[in-house]
Amino acid sequence: MENIIQQLEQQADFLNLPKNHLSVLLKNPDRFFKYSLKIPGFFYDFSRQRLDDATLRLLFEFAERRKVIDRFKAMTRGEKINLSENRAALHTAMRDFSENPVFVDKKDVMPQIRKVRDEIKAFSEQLRAGKLPGTTGQPLRDVVVVGIGGSYLGTECVADALMAYATEKNNLYFLANVDPSDFARVSRHIDPEKTLWIIISKSYTTRETLANENLVRWFLKQKGLDPAFHLATVTSKGSPGDNPDNPVVASFHMFDFVGGRYSVSSAVGGAPLSLYMGYDVFERFLHGANAMDQHAASSPVSENIPLMAALSTLWNKDFLGYPALGIIPYATNLRRLPAHIQQLHMESNGKNVTAQGEPLEKPAGTIIIGEPGTNAQHSFFQMAHQGPAFPVEFIGVAENPFPEPAGVPYRGVTNHQELLANLISQAKALAEGQDNSDKTRFFPGNRPSSTIILDDLTPESVGMLISFYEAKTVFEAFLWNINPFDQFGVQLGKTIAATVREQIMAHNFEKPVSSDDPIVSGYLDLLAISK
Amino acid sequence: MENIIQQLEQQADFLNLPKNHLSVLLKNPDRFFKYSLKIPGFFYDFSRQRLDDATLRLLFEFAERRKVIDRFKAMTRGEKINLSENRAALHTAMRDFSENPVFVDKKDVMPQIRKVRDEIKAFSEQLRAGKLPGTTGQPLRDVVVVGIGGSYLGTECVADALMAYATEKNNLYFLANVDPSDFARVSRHIDPEKTLWIIISKSYTTRETLANENLVRWFLKQKGLDPAFHLATVTSKGSPGDNPDNPVVASFHMFDFVGGRYSVSSAVGGAPLSLYMGYDVFERFLHGANAMDQHAASSPVSENIPLMAALSTLWNKDFLGYPALGIIPYATNLRRLPAHIQQLHMESNGKNVTAQGEPLEKPAGTIIIGEPGTNAQHSFFQMAHQGPAFPVEFIGVAENPFPEPAGVPYRGVTNHQELLANLISQAKALAEGQDNSDKTRFFPGNRPSSTIILDDLTPESVGMLISFYEAKTVFEAFLWNINPFDQFGVQLGKTIAATVREQIMAHNFEKPVSSDDPIVSGYLDLLAISK
Repeated sequence: MENIIQQLEQQADFLNLPKNHLSVLLKNPDRFFKYSLKIPGFFYDFSRQRLDDATLRLLFEFAERRKVIDRFKAMTRGEKINLSENRAALHTAMRDFSENPVFVDKKDVMPQIRKVRDEIKAFSEQLRAGKLPGTTGQPLRDVVVVGIGGSYLGTECVADALMAYATEKNNLYFLANVDPSDFARVSRHIDPEKTLWIIISKSYTTRETLANENLVRWFLKQKGLDPAFHLATVTSKGSPGDNPDNPVVASFHMFDFVGGRYSVSSAVGGAPLSLYMGYDVFERFLHGANAMDQHAASSPVSENIPLMAALSTLWNKDFLGYPALGIIPYATNLRRLPAHIQQLHMESNGKNVTAQGEPLEKPAGTIIIGEPGTNAQHSFFQMAHQGPAFPVEFIGVAENPFPEPAGVPYRGVTNHQELLANLISQAKALAEGQDNSDKTRFFPGNRPSSTIILDDLTPESVGMLISFYEAKTVFEAFLWNINPFDQFGVQLGKTIAATVREQIMAHNFEKPVSSDDPIVSGYLDLLAISK
Repeated sequence: MENIIQQLEQQADFLNLPKNHLSVLLKNPDRFFKYSLKIPGFFYDFSRQRLDDATLRLLFEFAERRKVIDRFKAMTRGEKINLSENRAALHTAMRDFSENPVFVDKKDVMPQIRKVRDEIKAFSEQLRAGKLPGTTGQPLRDVVVVGIGGSYLGTECVADALMAYATEKNNLYFLANVDPSDFARVSRHIDPEKTLWIIISKSYTTRETLANENLVRWFLKQKGLDPAFHLATVTSKGSPGDNPDNPVVASFHMFDFVGGRYSVSSAVGGAPLSLYMGYDVFERFLHGANAMDQHAASSPVSENIPLMAALSTLWNKDFLGYPALGIIPYATNLRRLPAHIQQLHMESNGKNVTAQGEPLEKPAGTIIIGEPGTNAQHSFFQMAHQGPAFPVEFIGVAENPFPEPAGVPYRGVTNHQELLANLISQAKALAEGQDNSDKTRFFPGNRPSSTIILDDLTPESVGMLISFYEAKTVFEAFLWNINPFDQFGVQLGKTIAATVREQIMAHNFEKPVSSDDPIVSGYLDLLAISK
């Protein structure tokens, strides 16, 4: 391994030579064909990454040595690859429609997964048919997801991506932050008599979510509505949210082998998305995700799209030294994808220990930023072109979910074509740059990017895209030899917050408040401590 | 200057020693008091930056040598500090309510600024009173901003921040992207008979905005509505959008001395925000911004809040080597602030030439990311704690715009207090870290942050916050000796897009399409070229 790493470092030195500027590499007319991969519905172009055949051979060898595809398969078979928590990681099983068993602790988990899917299907069909009355007899219609982090970000991203499949009959809202402004925003939009609140928390101990549940229960009471008719839960079997003493409309189980940021294809995404767009749309999404899972598990290293994307992360961060990645979807409907991938990658792979718990030489993980294109061209792309460089992953969609209506006066190109022209041009400008004796107008170029093209924004395509990023994230972790399924880094803040909370409670009960940290004391005074 | 830079490099080496870990520096009980600044309504704490008195002295000397406060004053007086475009930069004049003249080319620009403010006031009062009928006689009520980049991001951020001041009577929507899905989204929400579309473009040549205007005009025609009753413009005097042959409801002027990303206090923000919340609210916002401008222009280096924040950018990027900054508002209503600041900073300061057009030794600019807290704690903060480090700017609000309603069952702390407890705790956890023999639970700490506390989210406070970031951005540029007001880096992509657009047009008119770039040809084929 040391040997490959050394050779990759030499490759980086070589590619850093001016003679190997991307504009030179791109003169090879075969590059686009050689450095792109395609499977039905998903095209991936890495021709504008700063690498050559020798780099690729080394990266593939790196992947082979790390046995990343074997480990991916082991993951899908239910092996406990989440070593620190001694758990399997089976988000792929959530979209497995085969008859094959998947064993965890010698028990086939597929029957319970199928059962939850069936429950979601039946429940969503009932609600969407107007057959699920609230307290006053009015049928439930709108849904509010009460959940934070992995309990809402993926769902929000997919719901937004597939908004063309929703009707105004069923609306979907999200209540994530413990900030009461979040509740105030949501409550402005809903008709309480017709609203179902889905509380989503694996452990049902997430403080923000319970604080919001408390507010929701108070709100229902104010409106004379019975929580038993207006609350549902998605939680672990036997959690405080799965308690028959607290009756709810429905309770869907989630499993300890699916982590929050990987959970959009479990009941976490399944229940709200099915209520919003119909179970059939959600199932199409699952089939798309499954197609990408199969590609990731069965393709050889040199043809494996999410692995190639993961190798570009490794190459760009560890060898070329780029600290960040821009994810720029040229599609308004994918506007929350960057936030979802920011969580997926940074929470999974922002680590400083190996999967075995040994310190890493340098920490893993890349900063993810992103806004939709062309919007990003008018905001932070100045820096992408002329400031410190960062790689970009462009995403384009061949067929727009809202094609130009017939009769719009022709301006030479349609608006969708204008969007695509910009997508094609930005990657070229970043890579090639342009010389100019006026240095304010000089573009250094040599800025790497990849481009993904989806055929469309159907549920299948969006499923493939989400699954692509899950597989990419997992492959990155396998390349770095880290565990992408735990998140101990969020614990210390929680522990300290527990102490600060005690101090604020003391204040509320007019007891003396003291902290041995002068800064914490300073803030308690400064905020005095604001209700 | 070389000498100071060398000393700062030595300081960085010194502060990188384990004995100068932040947890050690924080043992000084005076640090919070010494390393924080306060003006009415705005508290800034930099006690958790990785610096000491010697560093501060050097940074202050750096600022003195760069004459940053003199240059800031020169900017507010109308000097043409935007050298590459030979323009003044007078966003501060937009919120100047004094009687003092501001001269550009020997002409006092204040009368025209006051005139536009008066026009906005009169127009918004008329519309909000229901006295501005659309084609069918129904009063105009809702507003759609048609604009991209600086023509909407700041307005969106401020409108969202001040949503508590809006009523459901007047709604505000944004149509930015040329993606027709953006139009489809907006058109789902509005009642065309009651809607005013404000087309915002300084030059009135922005392709995305004109493409959307085209769609809007078609849409109005379909609905039998007359654009003269439903369109307004914010544009430069004499631009194609200010043409009396194309009658509109109203046209508000913007000036060449206010750049897009600095324009939220001009008519760009003023017209839509006044229609949405009332002119009085907008004027309160301007007064808040003005208070911060005065602080920035008149405070000495060691007491200047936006300058101190800019110095931390310089220190963290150029000397400690951090490539990014997280902006984390513990306030849902500030959720679009990170995107606005991402544009403001990265488009202003992502540069590779000095203000005089000489190449920089290393490019300037920092990558900006952010989501609201506590949401971010549940998404990418794993990496902030245990991955590659990046500094954070926390923002807290003492008084919530939506305080907990009376009667919500008590859980020991209110939801707003829970939010503040987390804000206080994250900065502490990042700075101090925690040792653990189990390396998966080891927190290295030593991760710098600053914390801003606003008294509330009133228009004045939000004005101060926006103006703080504008001043910080300008000070950063003065420290780096770059021009924060041009953006030539966005040009090359536009030039290439013009060529690709011609090729797509050729396809549309069934003419032969060819490109000498095999990748562009590849995409034209691959997309075939999708309408």
